[in-house]
Amino acid sequence: MNYRLIFNVLGLTLMLEAACLILPMICAIYYGEAELWAFVIASAICLAAGSLLKCIRTKNHRMYAKEGFAMVSLSWIFMSLFGAIPFVISGTIPNYIDALFETVSGFTTTGATILRDVEVLPKSILFWRSFTHWIGGMGVLVFLVSLVKLSGGNNLYLLKAESTGPSVGKLVPKVQATAKILYGIYTTLTVVELVLLLFGGMSFFEAITTAMGTAGTGGFGVRNSSIAGYSSYIQVVVTVFMLIFGVDFSIYYLILIRKFSTAFRSEELRWYLGIVAVSIILICINVVGTFQSVGEALKHSAFQVASIITTTGFATDDFNLWPEFSKVILVLLMFVGACAGSTGGGMKVSRILIATKTIIKELKITAHPKSTHKITINGRMVEHETIRSINVYMIAYFVIFAASLLLISFDNFNFTANFTAVAATINNIGPGLDMVGPTGNFADFSGLSKIIFVLDMLVGRLEVFPMLILFSPYTWKK
Amino acid sequence: MNYRLIFNVLGLTLMLEAACLILPMICAIYYGEAELWAFVIASAICLAAGSLLKCIRTKNHRMYAKEGFAMVSLSWIFMSLFGAIPFVISGTIPNYIDALFETVSGFTTTGATILRDVEVLPKSILFWRSFTHWIGGMGVLVFLVSLVKLSGGNNLYLLKAESTGPSVGKLVPKVQATAKILYGIYTTLTVVELVLLLFGGMSFFEAITTAMGTAGTGGFGVRNSSIAGYSSYIQVVVTVFMLIFGVDFSIYYLILIRKFSTAFRSEELRWYLGIVAVSIILICINVVGTFQSVGEALKHSAFQVASIITTTGFATDDFNLWPEFSKVILVLLMFVGACAGSTGGGMKVSRILIATKTIIKELKITAHPKSTHKITINGRMVEHETIRSINVYMIAYFVIFAASLLLISFDNFNFTANFTAVAATINNIGPGLDMVGPTGNFADFSGLSKIIFVLDMLVGRLEVFPMLILFSPYTWKK
Repeated sequence: MNYRLIFNVLGLTLMLEAACLILPMICAIYYGEAELWAFVIASAICLAAGSLLKCIRTKNHRMYAKEGFAMVSLSWIFMSLFGAIPFVISGTIPNYIDALFETVSGFTTTGATILRDVEVLPKSILFWRSFTHWIGGMGVLVFLVSLVKLSGGNNLYLLKAESTGPSVGKLVPKVQATAKILYGIYTTLTVVELVLLLFGGMSFFEAITTAMGTAGTGGFGVRNSSIAGYSSYIQVVVTVFMLIFGVDFSIYYLILIRKFSTAFRSEELRWYLGIVAVSIILICINVVGTFQSVGEALKHSAFQVASIITTTGFATDDFNLWPEFSKVILVLLMFVGACAGSTGGGMKVSRILIATKTIIKELKITAHPKSTHKITINGRMVEHETIRSINVYMIAYFVIFAASLLLISFDNFNFTANFTAVAATINNIGPGLDMVGPTGNFADFSGLSKIIFVLDMLVGRLEVFPMLILFSPYTWKK
Repeated sequence: MNYRLIFNVLGLTLMLEAACLILPMICAIYYGEAELWAFVIASAICLAAGSLLKCIRTKNHRMYAKEGFAMVSLSWIFMSLFGAIPFVISGTIPNYIDALFETVSGFTTTGATILRDVEVLPKSILFWRSFTHWIGGMGVLVFLVSLVKLSGGNNLYLLKAESTGPSVGKLVPKVQATAKILYGIYTTLTVVELVLLLFGGMSFFEAITTAMGTAGTGGFGVRNSSIAGYSSYIQVVVTVFMLIFGVDFSIYYLILIRKFSTAFRSEELRWYLGIVAVSIILICINVVGTFQSVGEALKHSAFQVASIITTTGFATDDFNLWPEFSKVILVLLMFVGACAGSTGGGMKVSRILIATKTIIKELKITAHPKSTHKITINGRMVEHETIRSINVYMIAYFVIFAASLLLISFDNFNFTANFTAVAATINNIGPGLDMVGPTGNFADFSGLSKIIFVLDMLVGRLEVFPMLILFSPYTWKK
């Protein structure tokens, strides 16, 4: 294991975080908030720790998969450990475990909160919460790679570990150029949403936090009622942008370089939009009686479906009170998740698609043993390696899910709350049902359960394998 | 598709069922019950339909996997459709869907019931309920194969489709001899339990129904309180025999032929016993405060753990009232299930074991890319084919689980009841939590939901693939 290289990159990550903390500082200065000092101190600590770690230099830039995966996991853990400092110092979340939960929930774009009332928080703290979504959405190391040319090593592993989906490809031959394009698209789309929200009469502060929460498919809001209190225009804009950020970013790149036909031929995109449409229609029919008009029912159905499948977690209505059929659709969408290569969480549509195709292949083979069958996506054969990685992902995912469910059940809350709390964190959604529903929160769980959720959120965001590698004894044995 | 061969075997199956119906007839005569006629008529119908189907002869005995799997699925469906007749004719379960649910629950050794009160039922009807467990436990077609030499065809497919676990081997070179050995062990163990129960002062009727319910890992009882009202001796005997019937029968064969070391080297057996022991200890510690003594707590913990992991479903205490931690352990055990090659349901310990080993293999490969790693069970390499079949099984299992959960949620019962109802049927347990807990039943679900449960029970008992093959369009297309 190339420890020196790992420390070096961890140092860079913390220095990047120190820089990121300047934005909430500006926010605090603008609103004249005393929390400024919390950010200044946190930033200084990050800078100091980062510089120290960065001093560890190495001439050996050899980076294999294990270094890449361990490095990404550790970067996320370090970012979170240090990112929690402003909450604690400012006294807004005095308990460190709670602050860590909130920070991890931010970076992993989960949006689950331990806060019972967010409206009492200072604006700079709210800004930091939402900004962590934006940083975590596209990935910390992807950001780093887009800025700094990491010396020598194979940066593709970092991209692979942090990007979502079963098989990660570069858009262009160079990793750094790919990272730049991804962040370019990401920033542009965020700005477009910001402008549209401002156009709808939102204040700049609310518009930028909402835009960042949508872009990272995070879900932290600045109002206790999430998006429920805003106009229909705002709600529709957020619905559309949640869906936009749930799409594979390489499709936007294909559109940019005018390869329209390739872009729209994407099977995953079609299935994603298909699942969204069917879910909206089914829920709308199911809940229409509880709303004043079909239009209202459709708007709320669409918002909640978009919010859950993209794993954002904003809400315009308390779906915990909806009929069971609608709730089960939403719970299932939690597991489906968004498209590979998006900022969304969950298992991803492409994994579900390939997994389903392996069943169909097996049925075809059994029916016609002599014929040959291949699994294809977008007309191209899916590599055996990808199928194997999906299988391993799914098994590990369910094992971790089961273990988490067991451990948090110590707190003796009911099965629905426990099950959906794990689903909401491991899939990076935010709200679940019952106690952790859209009007609830994670405050009442014990410290142990909160640490389990922290690990689940990281497992979900990094798609299981990097965290497994980090905690695997084989990784560290000689 | 060799339709004629399928019809022929279906005919044989129904004729076997006609013969099976003679036992409850004897029971009705002994107790002087009017339900005798229900069984006579049902038997006559089975005999007539069976003879008609058997008349369809074929010289083509070619049987591939698809014929084998479709044949087994259809046999189970036909057995259930005809096996429900006595309940309807006798008026004990007048609604045919309910009667079908009860029959499928019997044959698949689920033990879930739509009856609110079983103590009002005639003895012959109760006997038939429990007898269906015994027939279904080891398998209908395995029974048929042990009796009749099916002409020419490759009977191994029938054994494969009906036996439990990821890879089914013959004990001896001939399929018929294997089937005879399996039924020999099965019958002997059932008789031993019967004798021990009689020794504990149970009436012959209660002893034989309880023994059959244990042997098939079924769970239908003849008292509303299941096993709660019996003595501690009886409860301990049932606990031990539930665990015995959850073990791979090939281990008993190895013991019979005195290959003790091979028998006890079984990794699956060790894990099975390990999971049982750990679960009992954890639950015992968790519930000890609610019982009068540690002994009582241990007895009830052991009974419920044995009942759930072997997917029997008997109960001595209402675990729905236990703390959440104990309940989650039981819910997870529902999915684990018993050993491959036992009469139990669930995913099977060996599947979980192999799946876990694939993760470990992946972690080892990532840590040391140049070394080679193989997945072994009992020191022998697991074939790629087996691993692939486990992956396909798991994916299909979860897809069917999700679809069932969605469809039954139309009835608007709560998430805990819905989730555990699907878990309890697809894993062939019987009771779940909440409304379908040990003191509850499935009566209040709609007809549609009951049909979903019927399919889930069959999917669970036949371990997914045979039912998928039956309903796959590829199977029937030219």
